Amino acid sequence: MAKTRVGIINVTGYAGLELARLLSRHPEVELVSVTGRSAAGKALGAVFPHLSDIDLTIASKLAEVDLAFSAMPHKDSAGGIIPLLDNGIKVIDISADFRLKDASQYQEWYGFTHPSPQLLQQAVYGMPELHRSSIAATELVANPGCYPTGAILALAPAVNAGLIESSIVVDSKSGISGAGRTLTMTTHFAEANEDTTAYALDGHRHQPEIAQELSNLHPEHSVAITFVPHLLPMTRGILTTAYAPLVPGKLASGEKAKDELKQLYADFYRDEPFVRITDSPSHTKHTWGNNLCLVHPAFNPRTGSLILISAIDNLVKGAAGNAVHNMNLMLGLPETTGLNAVAVFP
Amino acid sequence: MAKTRVGIINVTGYAGLELARLLSRHPEVELVSVTGRSAAGKALGAVFPHLSDIDLTIASKLAEVDLAFSAMPHKDSAGGIIPLLDNGIKVIDISADFRLKDASQYQEWYGFTHPSPQLLQQAVYGMPELHRSSIAATELVANPGCYPTGAILALAPAVNAGLIESSIVVDSKSGISGAGRTLTMTTHFAEANEDTTAYALDGHRHQPEIAQELSNLHPEHSVAITFVPHLLPMTRGILTTAYAPLVPGKLASGEKAKDELKQLYADFYRDEPFVRITDSPSHTKHTWGNNLCLVHPAFNPRTGSLILISAIDNLVKGAAGNAVHNMNLMLGLPETTGLNAVAVFP
Amino acid sequence: MAKTRVGIINVTGYAGLELARLLSRHPEVELVSVTGRSAAGKALGAVFPHLSDIDLTIASKLAEVDLAFSAMPHKDSAGGIIPLLDNGIKVIDISADFRLKDASQYQEWYGFTHPSPQLLQQAVYGMPELHRSSIAATELVANPGCYPTGAILALAPAVNAGLIESSIVVDSKSGISGAGRTLTMTTHFAEANEDTTAYALDGHRHQPEIAQELSNLHPEHSVAITFVPHLLPMTRGILTTAYAPLVPGKLASGEKAKDELKQLYADFYRDEPFVRITDSPSHTKHTWGNNLCLVHPAFNPRTGSLILISAIDNLVKGAAGNAVHNMNLMLGLPETTGLNAVAVFP
Amino acid sequence: MAKTRVGIINVTGYAGLELARLLSRHPEVELVSVTGRSAAGKALGAVFPHLSDIDLTIASKLAEVDLAFSAMPHKDSAGGIIPLLDNGIKVIDISADFRLKDASQYQEWYGFTHPSPQLLQQAVYGMPELHRSSIAATELVANPGCYPTGAILALAPAVNAGLIESSIVVDSKSGISGAGRTLTMTTHFAEANEDTTAYALDGHRHQPEIAQELSNLHPEHSVAITFVPHLLPMTRGILTTAYAPLVPGKLASGEKAKDELKQLYADFYRDEPFVRITDSPSHTKHTWGNNLCLVHPAFNPRTGSLILISAIDNLVKGAAGNAVHNMNLMLGLPETTGLNAVAVFP
Repeated sequence: MAKTRVGIINVTGYAGLELARLLSRHPEVELVSVTGRSAAGKALGAVFPHLSDIDLTIASKLAEVDLAFSAMPHKDSAGGIIPLLDNGIKVIDISADFRLKDASQYQEWYGFTHPSPQLLQQAVYGMPELHRSSIAATELVANPGCYPTGAILALAPAVNAGLIESSIVVDSKSGISGAGRTLTMTTHFAEANEDTTAYALDGHRHQPEIAQELSNLHPEHSVAITFVPHLLPMTRGILTTAYAPLVPGKLASGEKAKDELKQLYADFYRDEPFVRITDSPSHTKHTWGNNLCLVHPAFNPRTGSLILISAIDNLVKGAAGNAVHNMNLMLGLPETTGLNAVAVFP
Repeated sequence: MAKTRVGIINVTGYAGLELARLLSRHPEVELVSVTGRSAAGKALGAVFPHLSDIDLTIASKLAEVDLAFSAMPHKDSAGGIIPLLDNGIKVIDISADFRLKDASQYQEWYGFTHPSPQLLQQAVYGMPELHRSSIAATELVANPGCYPTGAILALAPAVNAGLIESSIVVDSKSGISGAGRTLTMTTHFAEANEDTTAYALDGHRHQPEIAQELSNLHPEHSVAITFVPHLLPMTRGILTTAYAPLVPGKLASGEKAKDELKQLYADFYRDEPFVRITDSPSHTKHTWGNNLCLVHPAFNPRTGSLILISAIDNLVKGAAGNAVHNMNLMLGLPETTGLNAVAVFP
Repeated sequence: MAKTRVGIINVTGYAGLELARLLSRHPEVELVSVTGRSAAGKALGAVFPHLSDIDLTIASKLAEVDLAFSAMPHKDSAGGIIPLLDNGIKVIDISADFRLKDASQYQEWYGFTHPSPQLLQQAVYGMPELHRSSIAATELVANPGCYPTGAILALAPAVNAGLIESSIVVDSKSGISGAGRTLTMTTHFAEANEDTTAYALDGHRHQPEIAQELSNLHPEHSVAITFVPHLLPMTRGILTTAYAPLVPGKLASGEKAKDELKQLYADFYRDEPFVRITDSPSHTKHTWGNNLCLVHPAFNPRTGSLILISAIDNLVKGAAGNAVHNMNLMLGLPETTGLNAVAVFP
Repeated sequence: MAKTRVGIINVTGYAGLELARLLSRHPEVELVSVTGRSAAGKALGAVFPHLSDIDLTIASKLAEVDLAFSAMPHKDSAGGIIPLLDNGIKVIDISADFRLKDASQYQEWYGFTHPSPQLLQQAVYGMPELHRSSIAATELVANPGCYPTGAILALAPAVNAGLIESSIVVDSKSGISGAGRTLTMTTHFAEANEDTTAYALDGHRHQPEIAQELSNLHPEHSVAITFVPHLLPMTRGILTTAYAPLVPGKLASGEKAKDELKQLYADFYRDEPFVRITDSPSHTKHTWGNNLCLVHPAFNPRTGSLILISAIDNLVKGAAGNAVHNMNLMLGLPETTGLNAVAVFP
């Protein structure tokens, strides 16, 4: 039987490259086409030597495929995807263009008028842990942002159980591949190495995405989310530390609260193939190169604070790996197909 | 005129080494004695080649000095310092043994009964920005912890002005030299590199120190502080991101609030030689090797949150450099003597 | 049909851990036993969270297996392996104990009398590119050292073709995982980060291994090898830069020599599944996490020097991955089984 | 007495920035002018926050100075310097434009016709260890390249003593700041981190510089130099490992040769303020931020090879610090003025 043909639009960024890495070793699909602007016409392996086993030329236009991943920049992506859907091609969009349900937010956060507000309603936010069955049934998945993946998975069980009703602080720490492959002083090795800094203090585009998904879990409360991303001198990984006051009375008192919290998280993620509750604070390095999200829920009885931590590889669970998970769901394949790598450690 | 003779007890840790580096180039004092246990009897430069210009042997016992720095571990330090004070030697203690005013907290946080509770009252918490005149007048300075230095300097102006009344989240990100020179898996390059993790979720020993100093600034409110330290793959630097809800009505509305906040910080630190308010989020790398604390106060009008950021070199402003600052005050020297290095960048 | 049962003796070092990672995902064998001294009795995933999918307890004694990997330290390994062989268990030894054919060299380089000189003759040096058929036929493989793997693969085609007859300089640059998991100041993050240094200038134990294999390729000349290893601030990877004067007349003159050299290398490694000749100087990062050796042969006509470069992941091609390759050969499996990972880049 | 006024042309590269750092703290000169193209008109501290203590605006044209440092790119630098010299301004050129005595080499290695071959003869190669008195007497110093500084200082005593007569291999390992501040994929953190590679295998522009100075030391022999630079994942530092066969009979046999070699090096550099002979292999980290060159000469009796190692901070001894050393000589100041920093370690 012929394998499902898949393609990657704009393979030349880090999410696109990571998709190529994963899809080239996926046993049930065939990567038949990759596109890119600057590098069009060149062999994929000539531009990206670590992919030299993949025998493809970077094309300017996608060949015929059954399912396409779009790794285009936001705004461009929506425009490029609509014709694909019209041709009956399933699409997983790595960009932000179909993540937000409220079209007005694209004007506010991304500065453009969304070309297809009605598609926003059909698109499914591609977080399998929250929307598994919708993903399996849709033609268009909006793959979550890297920061939202870490933040939502850290917080979802607590928000869902009503442990949090007021404000949340999300302090996220990302490796520098999250800043993309485009050259800026921010990503110059000599300037980024041995440095840590916060950015986007006036609000980061991933904030509405986090807010949308968490309020879906607990619609009766509007929770204010203060989200601050940081860049650290490492290549991959996002550690998210989320803080929120525990709603009084929701957990047992003292040390018992910790056990209840841990149980609540274990139950929420019981059958999830890619989420693990860890006994000690999560390390980003334990997810290096694989699709796991390691979650560690903690409670500080002195201050009544929940401290909810997650670790992911921003390019795998935070982008390409989760996209392949979505693809598996859309194609009716076992969810972990092609995604069973052990983290490369140390 | 003879220079003031100074010595370092336990030079072999990173704070001790950094003291040796700074004191060896200080124009008004002479480093005449350094002690250490494991390396006693060896030339300082033989064990630590970067200090080979300092012609001293590591001794097992401190020679005659006018002022001593103790870089001993906590608990040992108190015991070692008391006889020095009895002999009229001024002491700057790098350990935690005289930082907390409430002796019972030593039992709670450090697990030992403090040997001299009355000395706790005489000791001065060595943060010049808060206790300048007391430092100049005392014989015993308790040099602040590295995390408290970053946290207190980020928060002090806001707490002092009554902008914060309820809870504070302090998310601190430290380079690995903060974990000390002792060998552990935590500091193994292969395990620490490309990793980020949180630790001490049940409470870190620096928490009571932060709480003590901030409540002194605003005694009428008891503020709950959730402090979580993190280790990042860099050698030096602490970035502190502190979050607190702004007390309504304390600042103008909207964008104006940002200007007011910045002005309030600029006023608080107006004459401070080592604190700078930065226009963009502080970078740890801009303090590499020097005694500056770079503070960036921000306000998010969407959520009403203050986001207060500071960057320091944990071994300089967070330890040895600040200790030299204290020494300058105790000796009546200009405050910046020996501390005017420009950050080594990149 | 039952899978071949394999085990790892001393799983707790980096080579052992990497074997566990690879074997746990190998489709044709079952990892049934892992041993370790300090951690015996604990679940593998409790000590090494990135391996928590492997449901094994670290044992003090190896269970019944068909093939064993020994990751014991040298000297101990020989003693532990002999009884296994007596019981008909195939063995791949990661230590140095069976790599050298001349027993007297164990006295000289390792400081012990080899317990079984006759086994040295039966053991096969496990470099498939040189000894494929012998590996397939033996019960005991001596897996090459990490530095020799890089050095020999960089030099073998040139030595074999008689291009080199006098002296060779091998300048090797290794990531810090090569120094092992044992704690030393050398591997402390704060000391190793942002540092580069050479070591073992009086001769490194991997030197006789390199010499043995290269002289086998060209027995008529005795080539003096100056081998100097260096440690760099990265976790994985060995870049080897080997220098040798070209024997005059062996290649065409000028630029043509470069093409001939490249062709000679391409021919030598034509059917090798894990060696690639690269068009530009090899990057260690292009082998991160996989079993490739990237070789770049160059010639400088100004000086008449060959510059022969290779890049490997020291824990995969330089240790565990190559051991799995050997296992595949010994078990008659397709050589690339379980080893087809694409490098994790960036 | 008025201080000597100095200026920096093109302050915006890493050598320029490092000059600004050092000159701003130099007690005998005043930094009165800095120029730059892209950033002209902006405050120096606004563009480079670590220099915010320097109260200067980046100008498009140099103000009146007594001595100028040119950090312009090669080719531009020569053109910019000639008018300064005509106006009686002393110049230290950080570029390569006056380093080579043979004008034809500019055509060969840099691809341009040198505008002033006669100035090449007047310019002094600014390595104080070799040309101290000429530097003190000249108006134009050509500051050495970073790689040549490490290579020449490692090799000079041995070449000078006639220990080396045939070929030399220079394997240099540089931190990434050596690649400059200009943005390229080579310096992108995500691509450079955890990577090591060689480059310029066909010949690097620093090769003729090394050859020129070494042949001056031993004109009767023409030594072939194979120089290969490498980039490593660190910000600062160059480790140079140079290899050469010892001319037989030049040193005592066996272990004694090592002592003789060490003594020869100690004698050669006896009164040098910035060169140290180390007992163990040099570490780049022991020079971080200061002007030292740490040299470790070794001899391997097995192979008869000299292994000559040096470590420098590429931006200090390899560029700006050495330039300040030259300035001190030109101005008749004590050589170490403004250059006595202890390395920042760890």
